[in-house]
Amino acid sequence: MSVTLPRTPGNIGPHSRGVFIISVTPFTESGEIDWPSVDSLVEFYLAKGVHGVTILGMMGEAQKLSDSEQAAFAKHFIARVAGRVPVIVGVSNPGTDNLVALSNVATDAGAAGVMIAPMAGLKTEVQIRDYFATVFKRLGPDIPVCFQDYPMGTSVNISVPAFLQLVDEHPSLAMFKHEDWPGLRKLQQVRRACDGSARRRISILCGNGGLYLPQELHRGADGAMTGFAFPEMLVEVCETFFAGRPDAAEDMFDCYLPLVRHEQQIGVGLAIRKEILRRRGAIACAAARTPGPRLDRDDLEELDRLLRRLERRLAGVARSSSGVAA
Amino acid sequence: MSVTLPRTPGNIGPHSRGVFIISVTPFTESGEIDWPSVDSLVEFYLAKGVHGVTILGMMGEAQKLSDSEQAAFAKHFIARVAGRVPVIVGVSNPGTDNLVALSNVATDAGAAGVMIAPMAGLKTEVQIRDYFATVFKRLGPDIPVCFQDYPMGTSVNISVPAFLQLVDEHPSLAMFKHEDWPGLRKLQQVRRACDGSARRRISILCGNGGLYLPQELHRGADGAMTGFAFPEMLVEVCETFFAGRPDAAEDMFDCYLPLVRHEQQIGVGLAIRKEILRRRGAIACAAARTPGPRLDRDDLEELDRLLRRLERRLAGVARSSSGVAA
Amino acid sequence: MSVTLPRTPGNIGPHSRGVFIISVTPFTESGEIDWPSVDSLVEFYLAKGVHGVTILGMMGEAQKLSDSEQAAFAKHFIARVAGRVPVIVGVSNPGTDNLVALSNVATDAGAAGVMIAPMAGLKTEVQIRDYFATVFKRLGPDIPVCFQDYPMGTSVNISVPAFLQLVDEHPSLAMFKHEDWPGLRKLQQVRRACDGSARRRISILCGNGGLYLPQELHRGADGAMTGFAFPEMLVEVCETFFAGRPDAAEDMFDCYLPLVRHEQQIGVGLAIRKEILRRRGAIACAAARTPGPRLDRDDLEELDRLLRRLERRLAGVARSSSGVAA
Amino acid sequence: MSVTLPRTPGNIGPHSRGVFIISVTPFTESGEIDWPSVDSLVEFYLAKGVHGVTILGMMGEAQKLSDSEQAAFAKHFIARVAGRVPVIVGVSNPGTDNLVALSNVATDAGAAGVMIAPMAGLKTEVQIRDYFATVFKRLGPDIPVCFQDYPMGTSVNISVPAFLQLVDEHPSLAMFKHEDWPGLRKLQQVRRACDGSARRRISILCGNGGLYLPQELHRGADGAMTGFAFPEMLVEVCETFFAGRPDAAEDMFDCYLPLVRHEQQIGVGLAIRKEILRRRGAIACAAARTPGPRLDRDDLEELDRLLRRLERRLAGVARSSSGVAA
Repeated sequence: MSVTLPRTPGNIGPHSRGVFIISVTPFTESGEIDWPSVDSLVEFYLAKGVHGVTILGMMGEAQKLSDSEQAAFAKHFIARVAGRVPVIVGVSNPGTDNLVALSNVATDAGAAGVMIAPMAGLKTEVQIRDYFATVFKRLGPDIPVCFQDYPMGTSVNISVPAFLQLVDEHPSLAMFKHEDWPGLRKLQQVRRACDGSARRRISILCGNGGLYLPQELHRGADGAMTGFAFPEMLVEVCETFFAGRPDAAEDMFDCYLPLVRHEQQIGVGLAIRKEILRRRGAIACAAARTPGPRLDRDDLEELDRLLRRLERRLAGVARSSSGVAA
Repeated sequence: MSVTLPRTPGNIGPHSRGVFIISVTPFTESGEIDWPSVDSLVEFYLAKGVHGVTILGMMGEAQKLSDSEQAAFAKHFIARVAGRVPVIVGVSNPGTDNLVALSNVATDAGAAGVMIAPMAGLKTEVQIRDYFATVFKRLGPDIPVCFQDYPMGTSVNISVPAFLQLVDEHPSLAMFKHEDWPGLRKLQQVRRACDGSARRRISILCGNGGLYLPQELHRGADGAMTGFAFPEMLVEVCETFFAGRPDAAEDMFDCYLPLVRHEQQIGVGLAIRKEILRRRGAIACAAARTPGPRLDRDDLEELDRLLRRLERRLAGVARSSSGVAA
Repeated sequence: MSVTLPRTPGNIGPHSRGVFIISVTPFTESGEIDWPSVDSLVEFYLAKGVHGVTILGMMGEAQKLSDSEQAAFAKHFIARVAGRVPVIVGVSNPGTDNLVALSNVATDAGAAGVMIAPMAGLKTEVQIRDYFATVFKRLGPDIPVCFQDYPMGTSVNISVPAFLQLVDEHPSLAMFKHEDWPGLRKLQQVRRACDGSARRRISILCGNGGLYLPQELHRGADGAMTGFAFPEMLVEVCETFFAGRPDAAEDMFDCYLPLVRHEQQIGVGLAIRKEILRRRGAIACAAARTPGPRLDRDDLEELDRLLRRLERRLAGVARSSSGVAA
Repeated sequence: MSVTLPRTPGNIGPHSRGVFIISVTPFTESGEIDWPSVDSLVEFYLAKGVHGVTILGMMGEAQKLSDSEQAAFAKHFIARVAGRVPVIVGVSNPGTDNLVALSNVATDAGAAGVMIAPMAGLKTEVQIRDYFATVFKRLGPDIPVCFQDYPMGTSVNISVPAFLQLVDEHPSLAMFKHEDWPGLRKLQQVRRACDGSARRRISILCGNGGLYLPQELHRGADGAMTGFAFPEMLVEVCETFFAGRPDAAEDMFDCYLPLVRHEQQIGVGLAIRKEILRRRGAIACAAARTPGPRLDRDDLEELDRLLRRLERRLAGVARSSSGVAA
């Protein structure tokens, strides 16, 4: 038994919870955006119960799209979701004008917020602070922002006090995407500092492929923001956890952990994720845009083996009424 | 049922296999080398069935020891092992003279080989090649070398062709410690190129905390070289796999995967590993030398929970004669 | 007395020589492209005698322009130059489609070639080779390419043998922009290997702000590709050198060296360069687009002082018929 | 006319000024420490008028010495200086115990202070603060510390507020070695914040090969801490500047700037520096320890040319009673 977390169509805010799936961007074999697959992908994610979607993230290959493709993708995706869940749009860009332009497109199309990582090249916390001062000023007060803390991708590191200063200075900073690694202690420090009492509450969702999701929930995370190809597991883990059954949640998680770990290989992991989504019927073609990873025969056999093992394990769990850890 | 891989006291070579555990270095609370714990740790590792030991690696905090401590530790450790299994000594150093000096100390004390990572700061494959040309020349032909490929720690990347060139040029390069991440394809390419037919065979052992060990074995690895605090799992996985029962091996692995993943957090992972070794009686004190990570109360509770879950899961497996995946 | 190097309107090729100035992108104070300043800037550069121009490089703030701005800027700039000198267009992009699209726009508009740096994130020479194999295939055989070797900006390092392999595999690779630092030996190795006899000749122009230009010319460079705000110095140095008067060339260079060095400060150097161009009437406004450096009062006073010193020194040189080094 | 800055034998402190030359470590061709050259080098530096010496820095190849060599070198060097000028000892080390041990050796031998860079791997300002809290506690209150801010070497960046916090927390932090690049504004901010009125004064000496020394003096630096092979130029520039003749100081600097820039090539610059010192009789052999750069024939010819040009220029200056800028 699990709770059903709300799937509210409004803006992201202090009480956003659950699973915001990081959407892939489907391409045809020749590298064009595959619009029918965008539609089927939206329906796939919603059918799996996600509480929100984040598009145009790093795993959405946003940096390989043209500006007009980004805008068109955001509009199409949001229109297809049609308010059933909130949609966050990744807008990180080396140019602030470009960032703002896409943010406005997204907001006009109905996005629930935008996600911004500190620009690569920022070296000190003063520089991070100055950067976001400009960005928030340009965005204005009405666009909710999710701060993406992903040093492995950006090479920008921020300490907890420096992040809290951003929270204090920018009321529209509404969400913290935690994916510093390792970062369990950092997540917990942010949670305690932004708990609605010591300081206004912000929502904390976790990335890093979900590799530490049960630990992150124990530490105070509100859910996951990652793109694992079995979103229903992320959803069930979160809902079971918030229903007060953490061990059952973690049992479910552990069943999938071999695959979570397999997908969490920087680079090739995207190809694995897309291949699974293809096999599950979510998208028609697994290709990543150039330059992007491709699976070879060995990779595919390895994936076959892992998926067979997952099936077997889930079957075993189903047979046992009391679960694997019972 | 599993095979018992040989535990040969001789030098490392093309047919080295199994688990070479990466040893921690035990310290007292005040930061001195804890010699009695060195002895108990050796006995712990050997009792768990490891096929070799690697000391003074990065997770052995080698860079925080003085030269004389490194030498003393190597001599003491090797003497205690007393030829029961081969011992590899990590000797990476920014100065070639220092590297050679420790290699000679280790060899004189009975080491089975030395482990060398390309020095931080090498930028191109020509530079890597030149660096190792000098190092191998200085070491002479009689010291077997394990090449540690760990870009996350060294920031040095080497392609497969460039590595193969090293193999061709240096007959004493005997072992490849694979811990590029992600790197399953790379491992397999090295395996196929150094299979004893296309080219002389070299041994391939895998690091990265063991996070992908079953996949690595399928790809042709000869075993693991990592420091997971439950060495008996690594041993059983390898021996079961080489006995022709890969699924049983992976079932065993998957039981421990939540903890493998937990220990594989750069930085704090060392503190977790040492704390588990302390709880298991292998060492008296979990302290890492300064600067080093410390677990706080939250970290310890989290570890408690994960260890309880492991126990429960292993008990479940034991109850079932046919294993979890049956 | 100096030689006048040819200012040919055709494509870049093995015999391109002289100064290809790296153009800034002029903005208004509010951050729009300042089109009248684009025109005046073109005339400024041509009046100073440059042998070519490179636009949309890193110092052209290309990454802060939208796709449509990049295309519009390239078309406008090339049209204004109107064939008086060749124009190279920087097209580096994380997405190959985007790179190819801009290359086609540029070529259709009359560009003499495109400049491409290896994408950030490439880690080994095999990866670099694979990346360019795809890029060259997508570009086709008719677009001449300048390879930008700028590890400080890209974090990608390439050895001489790996670069030569690219030269051998891709006949349209026509030019090497050398700005590895330090890299005098590398430049010379490429020069000797691509001298028209050992291997087909390629043109080598040097970046790095021109900081080592006289040494680079001695080592076999064909000229400079950098954006120093006094292009006439770069032109005179190159033409004097190729007229067989290397010491006179270096005397002239040394007069400007304090300012060359001052402009060669990563980040703030762009603001210094634009401010000098503004003072010289080349552009109307010195602003860099956000996020970009701004000079404060101290910076401006420091620049005043350096410019006064330059004037005084040039006056001293003019008074002396035999030059400073006589 | 210039002032003679004090050459005080006491500890470094708020009023340390002038040139603390970064000493090389002389080796024989076979890589042993060349003790007679240590003596001649000390006399060379002192004869050139330096106000202090810093040994065992990065350009002193400290990381290639064994612990016992470092200790022996420090003792020998300090004994030879014999109190004529203060000697700072670089003690940066990945292990705090090693750092403290060398600090104690140095202090016992009569060092005027120790120099410490934040350890590579520190990622946030909280981590930097914690690191130095431990280090200062271990060193005790009596060892004056020079903080080396060299991000290009350490990959650790610190903002001005974070540095000022260190100043406030650690009274024995006595000196700031500025070599962030570019960093003129940072230097000035530290100067203004630590001016003896807003906050206690600390001494600021500049590295980076001296490439911006005149600008740094204008911004408030107290002198240079770098290893340029013509220390007499650094001394004259500082003393002339502090005598109130900044333009004459900068004229002298500009004469040497081509060589300053040439020596400021990371890697090969050390070989150039040692070769010049050898030619000037300061040391017997120019070899760097392995792995280290070597000059080839082209490098040597290039250096010949630059040294001839320097001689000619100095001769021209000498002929003119009023100096080049008159």
